[in-house]
Amino acid sequence: MRKTIIGVMGPGDGASVADRENAYELGKLIATQGWVLLTGGRKEGVMDAANKGAKAADGLTLGILPTNDSHAVSGAVDLAVFTEMGNARNNINVLSSDVVIACGMGMGTASEVGLALKAGKKVVLLTNHQPTQQFFTGFSPDNVFVATSPETALTLVKETLTYNF
Amino acid sequence: MRKTIIGVMGPGDGASVADRENAYELGKLIATQGWVLLTGGRKEGVMDAANKGAKAADGLTLGILPTNDSHAVSGAVDLAVFTEMGNARNNINVLSSDVVIACGMGMGTASEVGLALKAGKKVVLLTNHQPTQQFFTGFSPDNVFVATSPETALTLVKETLTYNF
Amino acid sequence: MRKTIIGVMGPGDGASVADRENAYELGKLIATQGWVLLTGGRKEGVMDAANKGAKAADGLTLGILPTNDSHAVSGAVDLAVFTEMGNARNNINVLSSDVVIACGMGMGTASEVGLALKAGKKVVLLTNHQPTQQFFTGFSPDNVFVATSPETALTLVKETLTYNF
Amino acid sequence: MRKTIIGVMGPGDGASVADRENAYELGKLIATQGWVLLTGGRKEGVMDAANKGAKAADGLTLGILPTNDSHAVSGAVDLAVFTEMGNARNNINVLSSDVVIACGMGMGTASEVGLALKAGKKVVLLTNHQPTQQFFTGFSPDNVFVATSPETALTLVKETLTYNF
Repeated sequence: MRKTIIGVMGPGDGASVADRENAYELGKLIATQGWVLLTGGRKEGVMDAANKGAKAADGLTLGILPTNDSHAVSGAVDLAVFTEMGNARNNINVLSSDVVIACGMGMGTASEVGLALKAGKKVVLLTNHQPTQQFFTGFSPDNVFVATSPETALTLVKETLTYNF
Repeated sequence: MRKTIIGVMGPGDGASVADRENAYELGKLIATQGWVLLTGGRKEGVMDAANKGAKAADGLTLGILPTNDSHAVSGAVDLAVFTEMGNARNNINVLSSDVVIACGMGMGTASEVGLALKAGKKVVLLTNHQPTQQFFTGFSPDNVFVATSPETALTLVKETLTYNF
Repeated sequence: MRKTIIGVMGPGDGASVADRENAYELGKLIATQGWVLLTGGRKEGVMDAANKGAKAADGLTLGILPTNDSHAVSGAVDLAVFTEMGNARNNINVLSSDVVIACGMGMGTASEVGLALKAGKKVVLLTNHQPTQQFFTGFSPDNVFVATSPETALTLVKETLTYNF
Repeated sequence: MRKTIIGVMGPGDGASVADRENAYELGKLIATQGWVLLTGGRKEGVMDAANKGAKAADGLTLGILPTNDSHAVSGAVDLAVFTEMGNARNNINVLSSDVVIACGMGMGTASEVGLALKAGKKVVLLTNHQPTQQFFTGFSPDNVFVATSPETALTLVKETLTYNF
């Protein structure tokens, strides 16, 4: 039976300490709900932290890698999907997520939020960065939600899933 | 911890009855080993049968879909990865599989075997079709193995995995 | 000998009249320089208008299509590349452009600007929209340039090309 | 106005001397017809030779690269499309070609022929290799044509194009 998949997107080596802490917490909360965590799969920044959080709560983790390099995979990824298609894999990340959470922001993450909204997905922005909030909510007021903590992000995801089904 | 993923590739609606029966059996045997089954994810032919077999043995199933259409997914897929990239996703199928089993043959499957061998993967051909065996073993004698039943296919996969690690 | 390729990205059916007029003018100016115009190739919005402008000035036009549907191609595209990979083709658009011009803004275009900047490309934003300017220049002050007209966009492209070589 | 695009696929560094000579001749013949040559774009084997042949006859050449590495591009490619998606770009090669010619054979080329036939494209095999001819004509007798020289390959392409339009 199809499992619910929640995507957590965010910066790799450019992630701040707060982004990583939030990502770890998000991973834990997602796993606690019985949902599968999807990330970009690398052992960097938000991806790595979210996977570690999910494994700390015995979750299942799916990583969609940009390369075919098994050494680049986070040690906390259970299922590694090797795309070898660079950042074009960002589209797979968002299409395969029931809801997308952007934890922090950068240009790779911006492409994911853009692709998610283009595909009609709901996106939760977990960031205090005003220009990010203003840019995305301006274009997509109905599908973008702003969260101030991992816990409020999770509440928003729950509401979105209820509404979808 | 990274799970072992075994890919079963084969025809969709062009699959023969024997292909489907073999695929079902392969799915069951793969799941019994505790391995994850990877397929092209659609509710057709070899993909659907392999997933059903794996679920009959309580396995975990990963489907890499060519579209973004949730109605096209096999009901026996646990984790649906939507690529929306048509048959270009065939490369992802083989790169993400520790070993590839081709169950039956067709032009989509041929592309997967070609891509797998190009990437240095081991491929087990479960088919009696002589031209298929001759074509692929001729180009890649060290990485192609011919099986006559799902059971011998599984034995070959096991030997390959032992050799890899 | 490798030709210089300038990408013009922008909304499809959501393009404003001003976006289309700017795109037409950009296509003309690019062709006049002897450069190849690259777009997403569809017969909609900015893509279609830019291709028409380029053909009006006897330019060469390259369209990178998201589908495998020849009916969706702009009549002003000379070379149609069919990717059948949806918006994942946005990454190809930007990687294949020596410089990227975003003419107008939307979520597909945002993904292209994000992917371009992630890949280290220079991007010219031809838009008056303040949140767009603020968002992208904030993240990438050295690689984002704001233009107020097709003519100033072209001047910025020229300067960027000179600097690159 | 849309230009006719003919794809020439074949081995890279594994290409034989005969494959390269045939590819060069094919490139020349294609250019002489006023058609655009499409290849995988790398400066290796069949790709490189075909592009050189086309340029010797003042043709236009389009290369669809697997990487984002401009150093890997054949010097005889006019228009470089950087996909950064590895061999998944093989699907783009065949979808974008009005007819596909396989010049020589290898596992990458086999994937291209498989993908082309899966998509309903006509394929000309320019090879003496019996298992290759037997394998592909067996699966797709109506869409596979065997040529014994670049000249007969060109005649077959012409007939196919006439039939299509």
